[in-house]
Amino acid sequence: MINELFETKDYAAIRQALREMNPVDIAEEFEELEDADAVRVFRMLPKDTAADVFAYLSSDTQQGIVSKIKDAEITNVIGDMFLDDAVDFIEEMPAGLVSRVLANISAEQRNLINRFLKYPENSAGSVMTIEYISLKEHITVSAAFEKIRREGIDSETIYTCYVTDAERRLLGDVSAKTLLLASPDAKVGEIMDTAVISAKTMDDREEIANEFRKYGLLAMPVVDNERRIVGIVTVDDVMTIQEEEATEDFELMAAMSPSEDPYLKTSVWVLTKNRVLWLMLLMLSATVTGSIISGFEDALAALPLLVAFIPMLMDTGGNAGSQSSTLIIRGMALDEVELGDVFKVMWIELRVSMLCGAALAAVNFLRILVMNRDAVLGLTVSLALFATVVLAKLVGCMLPMGAKKLHWDPAVMASPVITTIVDAGALLLYFAIARALMGV
Amino acid sequence: MINELFETKDYAAIRQALREMNPVDIAEEFEELEDADAVRVFRMLPKDTAADVFAYLSSDTQQGIVSKIKDAEITNVIGDMFLDDAVDFIEEMPAGLVSRVLANISAEQRNLINRFLKYPENSAGSVMTIEYISLKEHITVSAAFEKIRREGIDSETIYTCYVTDAERRLLGDVSAKTLLLASPDAKVGEIMDTAVISAKTMDDREEIANEFRKYGLLAMPVVDNERRIVGIVTVDDVMTIQEEEATEDFELMAAMSPSEDPYLKTSVWVLTKNRVLWLMLLMLSATVTGSIISGFEDALAALPLLVAFIPMLMDTGGNAGSQSSTLIIRGMALDEVELGDVFKVMWIELRVSMLCGAALAAVNFLRILVMNRDAVLGLTVSLALFATVVLAKLVGCMLPMGAKKLHWDPAVMASPVITTIVDAGALLLYFAIARALMGV
Repeated sequence: MINELFETKDYAAIRQALREMNPVDIAEEFEELEDADAVRVFRMLPKDTAADVFAYLSSDTQQGIVSKIKDAEITNVIGDMFLDDAVDFIEEMPAGLVSRVLANISAEQRNLINRFLKYPENSAGSVMTIEYISLKEHITVSAAFEKIRREGIDSETIYTCYVTDAERRLLGDVSAKTLLLASPDAKVGEIMDTAVISAKTMDDREEIANEFRKYGLLAMPVVDNERRIVGIVTVDDVMTIQEEEATEDFELMAAMSPSEDPYLKTSVWVLTKNRVLWLMLLMLSATVTGSIISGFEDALAALPLLVAFIPMLMDTGGNAGSQSSTLIIRGMALDEVELGDVFKVMWIELRVSMLCGAALAAVNFLRILVMNRDAVLGLTVSLALFATVVLAKLVGCMLPMGAKKLHWDPAVMASPVITTIVDAGALLLYFAIARALMGV
Repeated sequence: MINELFETKDYAAIRQALREMNPVDIAEEFEELEDADAVRVFRMLPKDTAADVFAYLSSDTQQGIVSKIKDAEITNVIGDMFLDDAVDFIEEMPAGLVSRVLANISAEQRNLINRFLKYPENSAGSVMTIEYISLKEHITVSAAFEKIRREGIDSETIYTCYVTDAERRLLGDVSAKTLLLASPDAKVGEIMDTAVISAKTMDDREEIANEFRKYGLLAMPVVDNERRIVGIVTVDDVMTIQEEEATEDFELMAAMSPSEDPYLKTSVWVLTKNRVLWLMLLMLSATVTGSIISGFEDALAALPLLVAFIPMLMDTGGNAGSQSSTLIIRGMALDEVELGDVFKVMWIELRVSMLCGAALAAVNFLRILVMNRDAVLGLTVSLALFATVVLAKLVGCMLPMGAKKLHWDPAVMASPVITTIVDAGALLLYFAIARALMGV
């Protein structure tokens, strides 16, 4: 839309449109503009939305704009951004631009940004921001409202305020709702909630998202080891965290290196790079399966029909294993399954696998009896199938839990890895049973 | 904790603990209690938290309590619950309890619950609630605060208020922040935001979650076809929706019927039921692969070594295909990939698959050259591998998009289904290439 208005050169109409649109939608329109046009439209933005829009831009577009605007403009935009957005922006910029940006902001902001840049990826510190409202416990509700009116416009949220002592230690929180329903003369210390759910700077952001969901929070304070409040995490960022963590698991579980960019915005080169190493690794692991088959060449030569059931055995084993691993990986991500549950999980999976295996084996036996009229062959394949399903489900639940125990991401132990391991086991079981029952 | 206090019969301590705990944590403790104890503890809850705690209980525990308390107590609890929680509760109850509950609530609430029960699963109507604050445009900010103070305690959120006309049509919304920063004499109509992002009752809840995340919303109004507001969706429910939708996709993509219960709370019987039908279906589909192999028995007899590469070919094809299908399914779930992008996606996947396929084929050729000292065999397997990867990635991106086109859930077209299809294709390609190059 802005694109079209831009071609008509109707700048008044553009300004009008920009005033009425949501910053998120404006940012989306920017992605369609040429760099030079983007800078011109950016300068038409109302001053109070420029930083907002800037925060929502892709880092390519941010970079295009920053490299073309004046130093004073950089100072304004970065100065108006919430700290967490400014840090996210700086993290994606090339070194040359970073030093230019840092040279053009206040020393205080530079120090803050530098401190925030040091928090490890996926930690609470890396997703928090500092624009929260803090209150002292001895002030009255009406004084609290005074402070909210004064600072509210620059705060990420005014709906939860944090009560701190002289050393900035967290004493409690008080919601805007509580303040509104309280008498104006009440003291903040009397109405605050002292059972605050808080995070430490190094806590994992996925855990924080789970707490937000569990307790239905709008914001969570982040404290240091002395319980001093250093920032807050807000629910809008938590929705993004939750989405990104799930996407990361989807990608890991399909044997890909996770990527933060949307599919259509990722280059063919990066897509290839994210996939090919895993494919290569798994392909080379499958060599083991190949040598197992080579080792039983004589058995296969004696009874070529045995080969025909290999794909079915392998696929069923892979599917059975990835069912279990998926439930366990997801259960651990959502804090529903813990490492201490390992024996409980194995006992569940053992029973489920025996039930599933028995049902599949029975159907398979009948099918072979009807189609191949060979009860011994049917028994051989069905026994191998049953054993494969049990093996697959046990491997499928144990590997992700083992990975977690080793502090790896359990999502790595998903379908592709399980399949490769279970394939080898299935073939060994199959040939052993065939040898015992059919004497090949 | 309550469990232990209960054994000491220190009821004063229990009451004290219940007053200080978060309702979510109290609800968690309830799951450890016997039914009879649960009822007794439930009666000790402060009146204003009983409905809250009840809403967080599992449906088994809810049922245990409701079946043991008096009619008047039912009236109180259900009367104090938010409508969306009451509807969720009723949906899970057996018919006998439902009629007892409905008989003990007000006619107005009964009508509302009955109306809400009719919204289809996963629609906006099924996740909304009606406890929102509506304002008229001609009232002042201070009158608005009066109304918020009066109704706030019973509202799901007071942070977004909705401005409606005499026919309850949605005119705009105004946040508590805007109200707090405005002059007390300003009219609501002057400060409201008219560009409200709203949903229709039949909209899909996953779309709503995507909008919440995109715009960082705390609440969204739901309107009917005449743009009359009928309810709101709040961000705490959206976090749960987002988590449930991702979990559902994880389960579908691993060939399981989705379940709403946490893994450890699902019976072995239900776990088996959710898995065995898909396993059976996929096992029977693998019969096709088996008959392809049987059809080429003479080729395999002539060159038994060919069998050794079948698992590697099948696994690599399955992995390559599930990489593509995972990215497309997730992209469509997050609205990043649309049906109209199908040719763009195919062009991307074609190039990625050729790059991946070439790299894998090269490594594989070298490996066979070194290990088997047979260039023709190496060429045969590598060509088949290249073709399999290209086929797998094209099938992997097209099937989920085709499913979406047919209004099925794209997540069904994931790894297991793709693997089964690609297996057959990989074998046909392999044997065709072997016949051409090696004359078997």
